[in-house]
Amino acid sequence: MKDYLVKDNWRIIEDQYHAEYNQISESIFSIGNGQMGQRANFEESYTGNTLQGNYIGGVYYPDKTRVGWWKNGYPEYFAKVPNACDWIGIRILLDQEEVNLATSDIKNFYRELDMKRGLLTRKVEFLTPKGRHISIESRRFCSMADDEIGAIEYKVKSFNYSGGLALVSSLDFDVKNSNANYDEKFWDEDQQMSSSEAIYVTAKTRKTDFLCTANMNHTLLIKGGKSDYYFDYGNGEKYVEVFISGEIVPDGEWVYHKYVNISSSRNHTNEELQVTALAKSRAAKAQGFKSLLNDHINAWSKIWDTADIVIKDDVTAQQGIRFNIFQLYQTYTGKDSRLNIGPKGFTGEKYGGSTYWDTEAYCLPFYLSTTDESVARNLLIYRHNQLDRAIENAEKLGFSNGAALYPMVTMNGEECHNEWEITFEEIHRNGAIAYAIYDYIKYTGDKDYLASHGAEVLVAIARFWAQRVNFSEAKQQYVILGVTGPNEYENNVNNNWYTNYIASWCMEYAAESLAYIEGNHNEVYGKIISKINFSNSELEKWSDIRSKMYLPKDESRGIFLQQDGFLDKDILPVTDLSMVDVPINQKWSWDRILRSCYIKQADVLQGIYFFVDKFDPKDIRRNYEFYEPLTVHESSLSPCVHSILATKLGMNDKAYEMYLRTSRLDLDDYNNDTEDGCHITSMAGTWLAIVRGFAGMSVEDDRLSFTPRLPQQWAEVSFKTNFRGQLIELIMRKDNNEVKNHSYRPIKVILNKIEIIVEPVAVTI
Amino acid sequence: MKDYLVKDNWRIIEDQYHAEYNQISESIFSIGNGQMGQRANFEESYTGNTLQGNYIGGVYYPDKTRVGWWKNGYPEYFAKVPNACDWIGIRILLDQEEVNLATSDIKNFYRELDMKRGLLTRKVEFLTPKGRHISIESRRFCSMADDEIGAIEYKVKSFNYSGGLALVSSLDFDVKNSNANYDEKFWDEDQQMSSSEAIYVTAKTRKTDFLCTANMNHTLLIKGGKSDYYFDYGNGEKYVEVFISGEIVPDGEWVYHKYVNISSSRNHTNEELQVTALAKSRAAKAQGFKSLLNDHINAWSKIWDTADIVIKDDVTAQQGIRFNIFQLYQTYTGKDSRLNIGPKGFTGEKYGGSTYWDTEAYCLPFYLSTTDESVARNLLIYRHNQLDRAIENAEKLGFSNGAALYPMVTMNGEECHNEWEITFEEIHRNGAIAYAIYDYIKYTGDKDYLASHGAEVLVAIARFWAQRVNFSEAKQQYVILGVTGPNEYENNVNNNWYTNYIASWCMEYAAESLAYIEGNHNEVYGKIISKINFSNSELEKWSDIRSKMYLPKDESRGIFLQQDGFLDKDILPVTDLSMVDVPINQKWSWDRILRSCYIKQADVLQGIYFFVDKFDPKDIRRNYEFYEPLTVHESSLSPCVHSILATKLGMNDKAYEMYLRTSRLDLDDYNNDTEDGCHITSMAGTWLAIVRGFAGMSVEDDRLSFTPRLPQQWAEVSFKTNFRGQLIELIMRKDNNEVKNHSYRPIKVILNKIEIIVEPVAVTI
Repeated sequence: MKDYLVKDNWRIIEDQYHAEYNQISESIFSIGNGQMGQRANFEESYTGNTLQGNYIGGVYYPDKTRVGWWKNGYPEYFAKVPNACDWIGIRILLDQEEVNLATSDIKNFYRELDMKRGLLTRKVEFLTPKGRHISIESRRFCSMADDEIGAIEYKVKSFNYSGGLALVSSLDFDVKNSNANYDEKFWDEDQQMSSSEAIYVTAKTRKTDFLCTANMNHTLLIKGGKSDYYFDYGNGEKYVEVFISGEIVPDGEWVYHKYVNISSSRNHTNEELQVTALAKSRAAKAQGFKSLLNDHINAWSKIWDTADIVIKDDVTAQQGIRFNIFQLYQTYTGKDSRLNIGPKGFTGEKYGGSTYWDTEAYCLPFYLSTTDESVARNLLIYRHNQLDRAIENAEKLGFSNGAALYPMVTMNGEECHNEWEITFEEIHRNGAIAYAIYDYIKYTGDKDYLASHGAEVLVAIARFWAQRVNFSEAKQQYVILGVTGPNEYENNVNNNWYTNYIASWCMEYAAESLAYIEGNHNEVYGKIISKINFSNSELEKWSDIRSKMYLPKDESRGIFLQQDGFLDKDILPVTDLSMVDVPINQKWSWDRILRSCYIKQADVLQGIYFFVDKFDPKDIRRNYEFYEPLTVHESSLSPCVHSILATKLGMNDKAYEMYLRTSRLDLDDYNNDTEDGCHITSMAGTWLAIVRGFAGMSVEDDRLSFTPRLPQQWAEVSFKTNFRGQLIELIMRKDNNEVKNHSYRPIKVILNKIEIIVEPVAVTI
Repeated sequence: MKDYLVKDNWRIIEDQYHAEYNQISESIFSIGNGQMGQRANFEESYTGNTLQGNYIGGVYYPDKTRVGWWKNGYPEYFAKVPNACDWIGIRILLDQEEVNLATSDIKNFYRELDMKRGLLTRKVEFLTPKGRHISIESRRFCSMADDEIGAIEYKVKSFNYSGGLALVSSLDFDVKNSNANYDEKFWDEDQQMSSSEAIYVTAKTRKTDFLCTANMNHTLLIKGGKSDYYFDYGNGEKYVEVFISGEIVPDGEWVYHKYVNISSSRNHTNEELQVTALAKSRAAKAQGFKSLLNDHINAWSKIWDTADIVIKDDVTAQQGIRFNIFQLYQTYTGKDSRLNIGPKGFTGEKYGGSTYWDTEAYCLPFYLSTTDESVARNLLIYRHNQLDRAIENAEKLGFSNGAALYPMVTMNGEECHNEWEITFEEIHRNGAIAYAIYDYIKYTGDKDYLASHGAEVLVAIARFWAQRVNFSEAKQQYVILGVTGPNEYENNVNNNWYTNYIASWCMEYAAESLAYIEGNHNEVYGKIISKINFSNSELEKWSDIRSKMYLPKDESRGIFLQQDGFLDKDILPVTDLSMVDVPINQKWSWDRILRSCYIKQADVLQGIYFFVDKFDPKDIRRNYEFYEPLTVHESSLSPCVHSILATKLGMNDKAYEMYLRTSRLDLDDYNNDTEDGCHITSMAGTWLAIVRGFAGMSVEDDRLSFTPRLPQQWAEVSFKTNFRGQLIELIMRKDNNEVKNHSYRPIKVILNKIEIIVEPVAVTI
């Protein structure tokens, strides 16, 4: 755990220079707009710890698979988000001396991420090795108003130095991924220009041929001393620069603005790409930094209007939740159904790919509540669009008849993860994809989605499960052998309770969905049945499997068993672990982790969380009390579920402890890995812990329901949620709870199990 | 399966040019002498399919580990046997035209491996693209008499060509491993010379600094036409050559002899290495090809004297068993206790490393019988020498108190395999290493070995098991969770019967061994106890574990269960598999293999084979009849065990079927992978199938026992075995069996359960 950032309700602040934490700060202070993003690297040269990172949503490179021992079925490649054009570069030369904070004597350092406005600011004052006393002040953002535009304001001030000053402002596509499997570069040069006419560089991803271009425009204002300066244009491979030279005097200041357009063939034809990008970068310059920033702030303001959660009088918690909401929206805004929510967003390159089951299991409810429901729908459509690939993926593994296995990690629908115990066996992901459809419809009431898209996906998933089970003669029940559950600290186990349960549920929900369509959209039903070549005997098969599905349990303890044989382990609580043994994934060899009782994330509890209404509170408590003490929470996705269930069980301190663990995971670098990037998808879990946990929000019979349990550590928490076209706010206080209706018609809401009618608050149109 | 080789009792013959099988032939026709070896590459240039391979025993390169996802505990490197100096190179230039069989019109082609004499011969007659009608005849061997010497006789004859001829005779250390993880070369240049004084190249392995040198001498005789020729000397990086030019006339012939010494700093000091090697290569030339070959043949003759198995009137089987014996002795002669038996010997580079559990489980009995017992002892000493590393290896995985886990694959005692389900979990290997000590002592009667070496190893192994079990509260027994048994088609299973059984036995045997030493070598006992810090409470612990060890079984079927939950699978015989599904390891994704009932090698049967006397024949039959139909034998180590048990059960046809499958695995390329190299270690299994299977050889109360069951397909089989200083021969015939005693004193032997006294046969001294 680290504690070097200043607590503030709206801002992340680093008020001293921490060279040793620079890579962590680069992750935390990342900026993005859903279409592109970047780590908070310095603009000028820096030889200290740094991981350069700029990313463009949806652009990927199929990096040839690297394994120790090839196993049949492994995908040929792992799709990586390529490190893209480094467009922030502004080197500073004081005569021959290049500014480099790593070798400078830092007098003052201030870095701020203003989450309300989406603005990254840095102010630094330093002495160079030659004794030049200089300050830099930079502000930059990736525009939320125009997601192809980024802008930098960069001020260099001299306190004591008089002489030549040069800024080298560059666009650099000649970058590498630190996670490249074979140390290859992912980009080929396309074209470039650096002249008074235009400054741009265009590159193409190898193999996938994504054409991406970076175009820049700029202005310079010199305050004090001579105001004239000269341009020299230069270039290299996949690289262009402008060399701007002049003079600076003590107390003089250069104010440089850089306007960059980043766009790609994903959103433009190859032919139009360059022309459009050039025009847009010129227009950005014409509009000017201040006005662009204003548009950007307004766009953020609209997001915050509905997405914010306000926690009164607890700046630590307030900063934590806002950071999570902010990063989620920087990563995915929902405008583009071809995009998804990468686990590191635009804050790092680790894991590659963009889509994990995290999206469905954690992120979907966040977007359902905090923005228009079309955004959540887009996340479902994304999987629907990739159904054919999921069917192909299942075929590669020996399944047939339209069974689909969605990939563990993907950019384009193809599997690109390659560790057998996960790729081939962590099949529970299929369940979450079905569950997301259920979750979406339950929240939005949009049952038409079943007929238009959902049923095809649900049937393909149910078909997978129906083939994946086998009938055990020994048990006289259906079993699912050789899986890895969400608890990845068990591999290749038999009858993971979570997997068996959700598999059974998937078949049930698919059957119900077909029945609903048959009853309500009969004309569509025939078309679907015919398209997917569905036979009613499949329904019978599903029904048979569901009725005889083996769900392991221990009767004497009254708990569901994580998997067959779990109770053969030494069952010792995490509190018995010595500090030298944790985190076990860094301290123990893999076999030791596997045979221990320790749980990365408790999948029995995950299942109970998903289907909480189906379980008796006593069962929930017994399972929680058995599994919670065994859980090491070494998955960022773990604590939020525990927080939500603890709230439900009235274990308020535990709930709050788990909440803190999830909400400031990256800000406090809890898992000692934030330098690789932030845990974007798990941030939705923090939001869930408040909204589905403390606020107890759910939907019952098409009505929004709240069961608020405000942690005693807090005075007041409020948030809004979009619900079927209405914007509802819940204010939880120590003594009372208030529901506000920010729309134009009354709404029936259930508060603490009592239905109330909430009239609209006065609205000025 | 392929069938392109000519059957012959003593020779492997390829009598036509099979370009498509060349890599397979290169493996099969490999030659070696225990210290070095090589694939049967052509001497001249060849652009067809070829895998160049020359290897030096004990020399290794630590190739940096390559994995997809790093797991804690993985070794940093995988020790590879580096492809070493290519010393056979003799290019042929007819004016500017270089001979290349791949582009020539082959008129006759003949390749022969004379196993009796260890001689590789090739005769080929061809037309070059320019119409030159030429023949080549080469003979070469790696001397068994002097294991640093290799020699080639190379004849080039012209039928119609008159003109310039040049031979380019080279030593090339600038070679690569095709299995290099990062495409790196493993050798650095040390020194080289190519002159009338000396021709050599010396290179050093990177990181490990093995200094290896190749020195050559040569002679040329020109028959017909002008007999004068010229030398030019050339070199490149890690490469030297002699360019010998002259003229050839129709019906003229060049007879070239190349004498090479390959030696390394493993056997010489760095200072002496070059001088010694140069002198030896000169001495070889002085001795001449014929005389060197004679010494070599004599050395082989001594090996065959005791190691041969004679099968009358079945050339297919005869060729098969001799090929196996021949390759085993080419790989390991037992002279050097630092060497071991690599799974591919000197026939390929796949798998790397040199030592697997194959040595103890399969090869040891072969060497016990076919040569002096010091050779088998050396194989035990090898592991004893590596005990400290095995203890370190266990410590890395969290074990303590001198517990040892021997590596899955090693060159120097350190683990260098890196797939978690094998490296960390295939711990049964520890059992085989203990079993080999038992096996050796049972056969040789050398109980002193326990006090001198064995006990330390046995205790360290028993300590490992005592820590590796845990007490299951659910079962009220000790269990072993998370292992991979010899059946590698199951990963991370609980309570693999074989592993649990052998673990228990290890503790028993270690305790017995300590008791024996205490009773018989009391002075040593105290030293051992003190050295290994042994406490009697450990004995109590072992005893407790053994008495409560869980051994899974199915009472209704009366079988031992391969592992917990095995009967939850769909139990379908291999005969139900479609041809398109086999071999399953090439056709099915890994998860599908894992959850299927199909067995790579049946480890329950392996355990029964090891401890056959401890099981009731009815139990053996029930287990065999249950597991045999489920076994796909996709491990080369599998069929021999089935053959042996089938013999014991009187299932003679099955025994013979399984024997054929093991004996000609490489000759017939049964598993379609001989091109990578031969399956050396499994060849000992073929020998076992005859000697411990058909001949039923065992040791009972210090007496050799035979229970012959000659397959009806055979008329007569005979073999000799060294037993405690005496050489005994068994001749199995259809109607009778004969035991001959080739030593000087009578011996008591049990034949078909009846003790007989065998007098020495007449011996001429």
